[in-house]
Amino acid sequence: MAEKQQDLMEKIVSLCKRRGFVFQSSEIYGGFNGFWDYGPYGSRMKRAIENLWWHEMVEIRDNIEGLDSTVICHPKVWKASGHIDQFSDLMTDCKDCKARWRVDQMADPTTCSACGSKNLTEPREFNLMMKTFVGPVFDEEHAAYLRAETCQPIFVDFDLIRIAARQKLPFGIAQIGKAFRNEINPRNFTFRSREFTQMEMEFFCDGEQGMEFFEYWKEQRINYYKNKLKFKDDFFRIYVHEKLAHYAKAAIDIEVKFPFGWGELEGVHHRGTWDLSRHTEFSGQDLQYMDHDNGRKFMPTVIETSVGLDRTFLAILANAYDEDTVSTQKEGMDEDVRVVLHLPAAIAPIQVAVLPLSKKLNDNARTLYKELNEHFRCEFDVTGSIGKRYRRQDEIGTPYCVTFGFESAADNAVTIRNRDTMEQERVSIDNLRSYLEKKLAE
Amino acid sequence: MAEKQQDLMEKIVSLCKRRGFVFQSSEIYGGFNGFWDYGPYGSRMKRAIENLWWHEMVEIRDNIEGLDSTVICHPKVWKASGHIDQFSDLMTDCKDCKARWRVDQMADPTTCSACGSKNLTEPREFNLMMKTFVGPVFDEEHAAYLRAETCQPIFVDFDLIRIAARQKLPFGIAQIGKAFRNEINPRNFTFRSREFTQMEMEFFCDGEQGMEFFEYWKEQRINYYKNKLKFKDDFFRIYVHEKLAHYAKAAIDIEVKFPFGWGELEGVHHRGTWDLSRHTEFSGQDLQYMDHDNGRKFMPTVIETSVGLDRTFLAILANAYDEDTVSTQKEGMDEDVRVVLHLPAAIAPIQVAVLPLSKKLNDNARTLYKELNEHFRCEFDVTGSIGKRYRRQDEIGTPYCVTFGFESAADNAVTIRNRDTMEQERVSIDNLRSYLEKKLAE
Repeated sequence: MAEKQQDLMEKIVSLCKRRGFVFQSSEIYGGFNGFWDYGPYGSRMKRAIENLWWHEMVEIRDNIEGLDSTVICHPKVWKASGHIDQFSDLMTDCKDCKARWRVDQMADPTTCSACGSKNLTEPREFNLMMKTFVGPVFDEEHAAYLRAETCQPIFVDFDLIRIAARQKLPFGIAQIGKAFRNEINPRNFTFRSREFTQMEMEFFCDGEQGMEFFEYWKEQRINYYKNKLKFKDDFFRIYVHEKLAHYAKAAIDIEVKFPFGWGELEGVHHRGTWDLSRHTEFSGQDLQYMDHDNGRKFMPTVIETSVGLDRTFLAILANAYDEDTVSTQKEGMDEDVRVVLHLPAAIAPIQVAVLPLSKKLNDNARTLYKELNEHFRCEFDVTGSIGKRYRRQDEIGTPYCVTFGFESAADNAVTIRNRDTMEQERVSIDNLRSYLEKKLAE
Repeated sequence: MAEKQQDLMEKIVSLCKRRGFVFQSSEIYGGFNGFWDYGPYGSRMKRAIENLWWHEMVEIRDNIEGLDSTVICHPKVWKASGHIDQFSDLMTDCKDCKARWRVDQMADPTTCSACGSKNLTEPREFNLMMKTFVGPVFDEEHAAYLRAETCQPIFVDFDLIRIAARQKLPFGIAQIGKAFRNEINPRNFTFRSREFTQMEMEFFCDGEQGMEFFEYWKEQRINYYKNKLKFKDDFFRIYVHEKLAHYAKAAIDIEVKFPFGWGELEGVHHRGTWDLSRHTEFSGQDLQYMDHDNGRKFMPTVIETSVGLDRTFLAILANAYDEDTVSTQKEGMDEDVRVVLHLPAAIAPIQVAVLPLSKKLNDNARTLYKELNEHFRCEFDVTGSIGKRYRRQDEIGTPYCVTFGFESAADNAVTIRNRDTMEQERVSIDNLRSYLEKKLAE
């Protein structure tokens, strides 16, 4: 089983590079550990995942506002959040072979895992914030940090946004963006990298309603994975935190069955009044909320939903990857295995492929492709046999192929081939857009 | 005239903060010079501008592939690009008052602009790359840089993408993302900041076709501003570079009439074979292209289109801002001036506002809002008189308001009010989606 899963990871990594989903940053320079680039299909799928989350979390909700803050902000933000003082791992060096280790990842923290020496330095704290300098002098006074999480600027901008957006409690603020951590040992493909994208939402409410909203968001987010990303019940589970941060009231993680084992995908955390209290203390600006309905003034409580986008991307691939040995014979191919990604249509990099059955049909098929491309993510492919083109689309998870044959010009209809069932259906071109719109929303 | 423009800038900055488009990063900590956050309407509009560019440059073109690379990549990338050695400004310090100046911005480079002293240090180079450290040791060996432009990773990934996407020359690679420059004097609101978003496309072709594609892309991009962003002829102009980089064959900038004067919005540059040659030299990987049709092997020539997203955002606001003194009387408001943003519908943060005319109608109107919100960026507003709600939508540039009155339930129709003409039209709810789809695409 472990071997099969290891195998799955290798297959995903290989597919990702071969088909241009994800590959190492700076590959021609030998790569750069912990940094990954999203290629043509990958960047489309990543953008689609972002847009889906943004739509579900911001656009369809009156009580969630969007934000797009800078990666670099005032260094005091990270003093207030505790990151400058506490966001660190314990490290030790081997004095003999000079290897460096994260103590919590060593089999035996008193023995060098490389050379077996016991001659190790005292463990010391290593801060994970990436540091830079802003302004003309490179000294501590001008030090600044790349954000280690996207949520802190949400807390910092809370009051500005509340006022500009004319919001009353309860309401939330959401943002998608890059975060950076100087991980000592990046690993598991894009699961733990040094540069990654987060999608976070902070929901501000009266503390008396904190647990109620914690339960609400937990349910909302579970439903999102079930209904929008089509995760089956055995693909994810809820981990309930028993040990909580001193300020926290409750916390769960949504974990997913990655090829390397269960791993955290999203956290839903009841953070109490900690964040706004700290920024009130460090900024000197009172971030309390005045409830004009009952005259009460209080520090809002925060419920956080925090997702790793790169982890979502990887989880979706792990959930979608399949090798199918039987049904390929239907389509008259020599190979007896097809690789197929059963991606949800909402986030597939290509939703509809338009495939003319002869070069003579290219112009007409291309016109159709151009029309569909205004509404869906489409691709036009004329190269190779129709069977090969189906396989190519299966491998990148395209839910529907539209084949344009000689009859199409005559009867104004096309054949729609379903990726999962491989079944075909004849559909009138006049109804094509509404047909696909309905199918892709399923 | 200069005063009026200064005034316009102040009005835009004020509107941006008041209505939650853009405000200073870390404001509660006194702000952070050169960093700006996009709030609720701003982040929606920014995302819409991104999606529009991505659609026009990537999604509807077979020969452009997308990329989403890391901000931090292998430091050799910036050695090859010349940024580490040459991306710098000349600076001087006043030995008397300690002020620091960019030499090219001083009225007289031999006199301190603050205290008048002639006692200045020798001018020296100040590199604009933001530096950080990756890995456990903070020394030069572990130094890395935040990308100063999004195009370099495109060159670095060129061959990987070409192969994965099965592309032949000519084709392009595009990406949208953050870039960072340690500007000495950030200024003019979001025009020159230290963290900004670029939208860049690099088009690779045979050198013999270089000028042809340079002209093609120049025309494409000008048409984009005219037809998609609705810039009038007197709002933008073409600046032809006479002094070119030694490797460049031709270069133009598309400049826009910002409140502070003409400023660069986009560059269209013929970069010759410079970029791929440098990365071939520094990486040791041959990035030449083999044309199998004619057996020729050559280094591709690059035509670049490079836009600043934040500048686009600011230009759109400057172009859209208006104060209208006459037509407000139509809608029976006391004030004689309405502030209105004549934003193109494609990028307006809110495209359709649904406004019930009575609390009794809220539920029905809300159902309609929910339906429309699946297809357009919508807002539901029930607060204040209808005239006040129109003004609020005008100020954020909402092209269409849908008012839901008592007759709506009976005749299944609503009134659509046009932002620019303030004219009203009765439209059946059954036709509403297609009506709005057509109007918003105009």
